[in-house]
Amino acid sequence: MDKYQPLKKKKPNKLKILNDPIYGFIQIPNSLIFDIIEHPYFQRLRRITQMGFSNFVYPGANHTRFHHAIGCVHLMQKAIRVLRFKQIDISKDEEDALYIAILLHDIGHGAFSHALEHSIVNGISHEEISLKFMRKLNDEFDGKLELAIKIFEGKYSRKFLCQLISSQLDIDRLDYLKRDSFYTGVTEGNISSDRLIVMMNVKDDELVIEKKGIYSVEKFLIARRLMYWQVYLHKTGLVAENMLVNVLKRAKELTEKGENLYASTALKYFLHNPITFDNFSDKTLSMFSKLDDYDILSAIKEWTNHTDKVLAELSKMIVDRRLFKIEIQKEPIDSVKITNKKNQFAKKLSILESESYYFVFSQKIENQAYNKKSPILILNKKGKLKDIAKASDQLNLEALSKPVVKYFLCYPK
Amino acid sequence: MDKYQPLKKKKPNKLKILNDPIYGFIQIPNSLIFDIIEHPYFQRLRRITQMGFSNFVYPGANHTRFHHAIGCVHLMQKAIRVLRFKQIDISKDEEDALYIAILLHDIGHGAFSHALEHSIVNGISHEEISLKFMRKLNDEFDGKLELAIKIFEGKYSRKFLCQLISSQLDIDRLDYLKRDSFYTGVTEGNISSDRLIVMMNVKDDELVIEKKGIYSVEKFLIARRLMYWQVYLHKTGLVAENMLVNVLKRAKELTEKGENLYASTALKYFLHNPITFDNFSDKTLSMFSKLDDYDILSAIKEWTNHTDKVLAELSKMIVDRRLFKIEIQKEPIDSVKITNKKNQFAKKLSILESESYYFVFSQKIENQAYNKKSPILILNKKGKLKDIAKASDQLNLEALSKPVVKYFLCYPK
Amino acid sequence: MDKYQPLKKKKPNKLKILNDPIYGFIQIPNSLIFDIIEHPYFQRLRRITQMGFSNFVYPGANHTRFHHAIGCVHLMQKAIRVLRFKQIDISKDEEDALYIAILLHDIGHGAFSHALEHSIVNGISHEEISLKFMRKLNDEFDGKLELAIKIFEGKYSRKFLCQLISSQLDIDRLDYLKRDSFYTGVTEGNISSDRLIVMMNVKDDELVIEKKGIYSVEKFLIARRLMYWQVYLHKTGLVAENMLVNVLKRAKELTEKGENLYASTALKYFLHNPITFDNFSDKTLSMFSKLDDYDILSAIKEWTNHTDKVLAELSKMIVDRRLFKIEIQKEPIDSVKITNKKNQFAKKLSILESESYYFVFSQKIENQAYNKKSPILILNKKGKLKDIAKASDQLNLEALSKPVVKYFLCYPK
Amino acid sequence: MDKYQPLKKKKPNKLKILNDPIYGFIQIPNSLIFDIIEHPYFQRLRRITQMGFSNFVYPGANHTRFHHAIGCVHLMQKAIRVLRFKQIDISKDEEDALYIAILLHDIGHGAFSHALEHSIVNGISHEEISLKFMRKLNDEFDGKLELAIKIFEGKYSRKFLCQLISSQLDIDRLDYLKRDSFYTGVTEGNISSDRLIVMMNVKDDELVIEKKGIYSVEKFLIARRLMYWQVYLHKTGLVAENMLVNVLKRAKELTEKGENLYASTALKYFLHNPITFDNFSDKTLSMFSKLDDYDILSAIKEWTNHTDKVLAELSKMIVDRRLFKIEIQKEPIDSVKITNKKNQFAKKLSILESESYYFVFSQKIENQAYNKKSPILILNKKGKLKDIAKASDQLNLEALSKPVVKYFLCYPK
Repeated sequence: MDKYQPLKKKKPNKLKILNDPIYGFIQIPNSLIFDIIEHPYFQRLRRITQMGFSNFVYPGANHTRFHHAIGCVHLMQKAIRVLRFKQIDISKDEEDALYIAILLHDIGHGAFSHALEHSIVNGISHEEISLKFMRKLNDEFDGKLELAIKIFEGKYSRKFLCQLISSQLDIDRLDYLKRDSFYTGVTEGNISSDRLIVMMNVKDDELVIEKKGIYSVEKFLIARRLMYWQVYLHKTGLVAENMLVNVLKRAKELTEKGENLYASTALKYFLHNPITFDNFSDKTLSMFSKLDDYDILSAIKEWTNHTDKVLAELSKMIVDRRLFKIEIQKEPIDSVKITNKKNQFAKKLSILESESYYFVFSQKIENQAYNKKSPILILNKKGKLKDIAKASDQLNLEALSKPVVKYFLCYPK
Repeated sequence: MDKYQPLKKKKPNKLKILNDPIYGFIQIPNSLIFDIIEHPYFQRLRRITQMGFSNFVYPGANHTRFHHAIGCVHLMQKAIRVLRFKQIDISKDEEDALYIAILLHDIGHGAFSHALEHSIVNGISHEEISLKFMRKLNDEFDGKLELAIKIFEGKYSRKFLCQLISSQLDIDRLDYLKRDSFYTGVTEGNISSDRLIVMMNVKDDELVIEKKGIYSVEKFLIARRLMYWQVYLHKTGLVAENMLVNVLKRAKELTEKGENLYASTALKYFLHNPITFDNFSDKTLSMFSKLDDYDILSAIKEWTNHTDKVLAELSKMIVDRRLFKIEIQKEPIDSVKITNKKNQFAKKLSILESESYYFVFSQKIENQAYNKKSPILILNKKGKLKDIAKASDQLNLEALSKPVVKYFLCYPK
Repeated sequence: MDKYQPLKKKKPNKLKILNDPIYGFIQIPNSLIFDIIEHPYFQRLRRITQMGFSNFVYPGANHTRFHHAIGCVHLMQKAIRVLRFKQIDISKDEEDALYIAILLHDIGHGAFSHALEHSIVNGISHEEISLKFMRKLNDEFDGKLELAIKIFEGKYSRKFLCQLISSQLDIDRLDYLKRDSFYTGVTEGNISSDRLIVMMNVKDDELVIEKKGIYSVEKFLIARRLMYWQVYLHKTGLVAENMLVNVLKRAKELTEKGENLYASTALKYFLHNPITFDNFSDKTLSMFSKLDDYDILSAIKEWTNHTDKVLAELSKMIVDRRLFKIEIQKEPIDSVKITNKKNQFAKKLSILESESYYFVFSQKIENQAYNKKSPILILNKKGKLKDIAKASDQLNLEALSKPVVKYFLCYPK
Repeated sequence: MDKYQPLKKKKPNKLKILNDPIYGFIQIPNSLIFDIIEHPYFQRLRRITQMGFSNFVYPGANHTRFHHAIGCVHLMQKAIRVLRFKQIDISKDEEDALYIAILLHDIGHGAFSHALEHSIVNGISHEEISLKFMRKLNDEFDGKLELAIKIFEGKYSRKFLCQLISSQLDIDRLDYLKRDSFYTGVTEGNISSDRLIVMMNVKDDELVIEKKGIYSVEKFLIARRLMYWQVYLHKTGLVAENMLVNVLKRAKELTEKGENLYASTALKYFLHNPITFDNFSDKTLSMFSKLDDYDILSAIKEWTNHTDKVLAELSKMIVDRRLFKIEIQKEPIDSVKITNKKNQFAKKLSILESESYYFVFSQKIENQAYNKKSPILILNKKGKLKDIAKASDQLNLEALSKPVVKYFLCYPK
């Protein structure tokens, strides 16, 4: 039923290209990739923004996961060309598998994805859902995704191919940092994906960076850290995302109490059913494949008129972008302060004390700029490998590998 | 009820800036502008994309009318600075009015706007709706929009101020051509807004371009023409937009027959009520202010499961981007051909002949690169004015002022 | 003696890349190309700016012919990749020959080249000198440039390969328009080389553009025209270049009278010997290969102290950028006016009337935006070819094929 | 005699603008600035490249000190606008003085400046020469540079104005890092000058950065460090520059022995006279104002034919870009190794042992990414100041304030 019919006729050798404001033109490498892109599962990504509510802060940031995934295919083509030029053997099958794996690496992301993972889907990561999608597509495409899945799972024998898909310097990061920096206009987060790719090499089956690229790697780590604190964890975005989580939690709570909220079929499914890793069925996947930003935001818009005060008020605030105040600090928020705020606002807003946590809440955020456990390896001229944290002559990357933790408290203005 | 409470306290002299991938930073000129931006009417524009389904062709084109409107304010600041430098007197009040007028010039655009205007709203242009919004805001902001409205309506005594808002070389075009070119990645449509602004001057109360800017104007006209045919009227976008019109028409038809379709309150209002210029009430405006891309697309997604075949099939095709075939030609489509196609598909799809026009349809498109009726005036060194069509020494702008007309025919693959 | 020793050892498979502000990275395709680049003949191009005195107007325009030539190799790699993708057969030898031909197409350009061609070298074009260089290099590189020379001369059997090197849409233009636009900051001259290349195809052995690229071609022609009038023929650049011609003519005149001017060996050679096509010997080529912008400008700087008033005064004006006044008009300059000006300044500057033409001079300039004689061909979907001037539905390219002629008159302020 | 006649008539309110590939357009703030730019002292900067032989590595890096200085004026205008917006009082006189000071801050740079400072001029820094130029111009412009000089010398009472001209985050650095990164194509060195300027403020008469700009400052420091090691101290550039120093030293040595080398009048002056801080006379300044890249490089080109083997060989290698081999390491070069190399090459090249240091030489290079002595101060929301090295929560700026020292050894291939 759900089955999509790929077009029969393919014009051979048609140069399929897409405009991209960042790379100029992106070429679709072959017709299998083209067919996967045309599949409704993948077309759904057109309706999921890459950065959720970050456009509340950076109005240019409306780019989609669709575009990011295709951008990754572009960079992967470059990486393969560079590695082959350096005499690294990559077979035609491996090449195609890399394209598929990187194209689909994020296909399991839900609408406003991180928000969703903390509200209406539980205990299943987007990577696991990506895998489910890939297996489903593998069936539909007669087993042609087999090798891609192996690489995506990190189970393929040639480690460096897996690292191109997932590591501290994978193609995913090379595209999303560049893309997010571009669309937000935060030029300081811009990285030289091109140079990093040109510096790639393989040694002992590890994806490594040649020594001349050491400053580029440092720069990449600093840019990524900057993007985290200045963009991904920007306080306005944080508040908005957490308010969204609360709206969805409230919607689920009301649904459980028997309320029949306005929602699309797909969203209703997730409001009515507690979804976890264990009961994530084919039906669930099918419903998930229908759920996108439009289901969520259109429901919230309608909920602004609901009689439940908590649901309506939170919804209105999101729609009109009248967000909570947020305080961020390095120490955990004092629990007495939180309790006081809750009481204060329960009274002020005439809501139950038990509902006050929808309006007053605290949380921990953290980011680690560099993870020493799976190090970025630098290849020197003598062919020796070194962890970038040691190869870097001055920039204290040890310091960067300590997670930075912060705490925030939100409450109405 | 609808009334929005602007924040009371304003921090003085806070430099409100926004990142913009195109201009770097945009400064909000003053707190009145800031308050208008924060108003829900304006926040709605965050949920209306500038280019509708053009992202089916150019995946980067997800920018919103919100961003465009603010970009216009940025360019307006530049224009005012340049003109004042050239000793053109612009008062503080006129300056503020220009910011407001350009900020709100598009606020009456509906979701997927042109589609809407041809399906569920009739006989009222988006400019007229913009005016209604501006009047409503003028009430809320204690008459502070008076002068802006006058300028927007073209009724202010100083003609050149009106021309900055609406003319063949207005600030609107200077931003949208640049912005659309940027986000689509169609670099050839890029124009030098900066240079055009630097070349602006005022003579006999007319907004004019200094002679040195003549090539820039020519280039602007050619770029605009290119954007029309390569982007705005791109065949894939055309098909998608027309399929959307048909979906909405069908939804309206079914509603009139008593069907209660899934739709948000706002969309329902427009499906149930025939809206024209004459009956566009305050209630209508309020409903209109709630309607955006999310209402439309989430409804269409849900309609994919409807029992009405026409509605469901068209909806599915849009959602999965499986679009009709389109033929474009310079001559009108032969009516016999259309009839034959209709019969053919009525049979093939087992629908009524009277429904076949949802699947087989033809239309005329046209574009005029230059309009001689309200010419772009060139100021030479001796202070004389000349229509660009005559000042241009070679580029045949006469030819560009003839409308180009094309015809297309759409039908299922 | 002149002979350059190419380095013996070549590291195999080393990815030779160059940073380019426009393209990001440029890859040197193979070691033969690398060796030619390292040859002193080619290194000389580092010391010849692409745009001569245009940097008097556009201070960013200091890019060299060296960089342009290498940029062409980059675009040629793209073009070959696109054509092969479209099943156009290009052999490895042809590929290499294309790289060499495009790399060396401008190697015969002299310092401030056009100025030189009108003063101290006569009756030999830079293309002819390029050919002499190529033949010399062919000897040094054991005949490996044979095919490249054939293609450069337009004598190779496969016409489209020759057209990639020289035609109205050749790789040369695709790079220099983009590059000059980039460095001058005249963004309106920017063209989408990428898109034009993607649209290239071959039909009946002709290099053609696919129909979808028609707007890009139009845009390219308009951009080129804009660059001519706004940049290449900018009046300040024109004056400076003509003053340079006059300085060199005067230097030659004084030399002929027995004056021994300060000059490098190479420049002296050209001041002392009347060089034409017929007597352009190996010795001449060797001297030519030593002459660059540094010889010319350093001599002029020294000549500012010379006792000859004409030489000294013109030199000073160039060095300090105190240029003549220039009047440009569509009609030829009235000869009486010229005579009067000459008399006026002969008196004012106390020079001989016979010397006054150094200070008062007139000339004709012209540019043709499109040349119908070797048309740009458009390939429609049915495989038919059409001259762009006819394929373009509206832009009056007939008009663009008429040469625009202007006249200017220069004299001291 | 040397005196330059500024043009008498000024057209009022003419918008003098310059194209800039980086900023789009640069506006010349007033006619005094315009006149200084037109002065031959300043025009000389058109003939001095910003990055010397870095174009041996990065062929796009041919931008001049002229362009950089004007770019600084552009950024200064932005900075003044931002500070005034934040209620920092800057008088019209101070504003003009800032423009002049930043315009002229580098006017004392010589041709291939650092090379010159280590060969033919001794014991006088380019800042001191800049000051001499400024005083001379102050005389010519009737004392209008008085305040600018005070600020340039750091003697003006308002410290933050001096810091805009010279500090770790001065306008000079904000332009040159951006500009050098742009022209080299080393995109990773790109900094967001705009954002840093927007974050500027003044507290206790100190130029400070608001807390929200902390990541931008970190990014700036990392980018600057990257530019040092990847660009300014790139090994190829290092070799070339040191070879140039050696050529000039040899030329001076030969001159002292009575050899009359080919050289311009200005270069001869410096070859014949030992110039130090103490004997830097008006005559010296006048000669210095005539010396630029063209004198140096054209002399070297001529010296390739000289009978002195050392001079000729070094000159040839520079001209043909056949550079020495270079080894870089963290430890000082072993002196025995140096001696051995010297002996080896003295024999191989048949030169005197006493001349071998022209061909074999070693040196120390160092760079300090952050200087704690004059810290960059961060202003938090409570109005408190903190050294960035302490305010930064994770990036170990302490580490960055340790100078990194490296040593290199050069010798022929």
